[in-house]
Amino acid sequence: MAAAAASPLRVLVDMDGVLADFEGGVLRGFAAAFPGEPRVELAQRRGFSTQKQYRSLREDLGAKIVSVYESQGFFLGLDPIPGAVEAMQEMIKMPNTEVFLCTSPIRKYKYCVQEKYHWVHKHLGPEFVERIILTRDKTIVSADLLIDDKDTIRGVEPNPSWEHILFTCCHNKHLKLEPPQRRLESWKDDWRAILDSKRPKAE
Amino acid sequence: MAAAAASPLRVLVDMDGVLADFEGGVLRGFAAAFPGEPRVELAQRRGFSTQKQYRSLREDLGAKIVSVYESQGFFLGLDPIPGAVEAMQEMIKMPNTEVFLCTSPIRKYKYCVQEKYHWVHKHLGPEFVERIILTRDKTIVSADLLIDDKDTIRGVEPNPSWEHILFTCCHNKHLKLEPPQRRLESWKDDWRAILDSKRPKAE
Repeated sequence: MAAAAASPLRVLVDMDGVLADFEGGVLRGFAAAFPGEPRVELAQRRGFSTQKQYRSLREDLGAKIVSVYESQGFFLGLDPIPGAVEAMQEMIKMPNTEVFLCTSPIRKYKYCVQEKYHWVHKHLGPEFVERIILTRDKTIVSADLLIDDKDTIRGVEPNPSWEHILFTCCHNKHLKLEPPQRRLESWKDDWRAILDSKRPKAE
Repeated sequence: MAAAAASPLRVLVDMDGVLADFEGGVLRGFAAAFPGEPRVELAQRRGFSTQKQYRSLREDLGAKIVSVYESQGFFLGLDPIPGAVEAMQEMIKMPNTEVFLCTSPIRKYKYCVQEKYHWVHKHLGPEFVERIILTRDKTIVSADLLIDDKDTIRGVEPNPSWEHILFTCCHNKHLKLEPPQRRLESWKDDWRAILDSKRPKAE
């Protein structure tokens, strides 16, 4: 089918936990700001929300961990996830492939939104800035794939067009997925094969 | 058809020229920053790009008009388009209706992205901040309607799911649309009827 074969594959890639090391940054920021407080090491992280886990450790630690990622410079200062920059540079050059960065800002938008743009500009370059989609609801963005570390992605659209590939992160690595759900273990894992699995087959 | 009738109508509403008075703000900012320079009155505006029209007036005026909307405080300081705030407050309360604000930031994102969020917070409130979608490509956001003052909306998706309703603005009011293209002349015009025209009909 010539028409189907010509239709490019569209891939949405999440930022925090997939391209930018949010979890590492939160832990580092917390240890620096609250050196005497108990903390959750990355090996002990469970569940998408850091706030929830810190709160369960001790009620007031929830607000303290939030203050870390709401602070100026936090999002801009995140390290890239190993292999992410190289994977993105390769993916954007692939024929018949459209890459977008699809990311949800935190509610306190003051530093986060501008710093996310700045981070992309700094680590990936201006052509990726053009490809940022900031949205709190990813279900209404149409694509073939969404690579995201959040285990459950909900929004107004009950049947999103994309297949969600769970990107492995400290907080989700213990989850057992129900088939046909798939993971990408890291950027060293075979992301090219996942993309290829969604491309139209030659007749 | 019960299933179709239950599916909510999804409406994307652009910001600049539809909710926020970009054209009025640009003219006011230009007159204040460059009082001795010739300017394009709103009645004389033609074409989506202010930069292009100012450049055609005199080459160096293109960069001057760009400096106006790239400056700090520009996007935050825009006045709401008459009736826009009231229409949004009514639309978000409508049953079976999902409203999102779908807006493309300018390339120089430094002030624009944060100020767009701030503008929405200030004029529409926090529930609309949750509904902002920032994207340079609107064709991949799935919806029934896109209300936008830009005459031609292109992106990677050749067949967007939405119908584009052209919101009348100084720069597009002379354009003759090809049927079945439709306009919304202002927020006093019958936007409710346009929404209703896209809702599933009762059997």
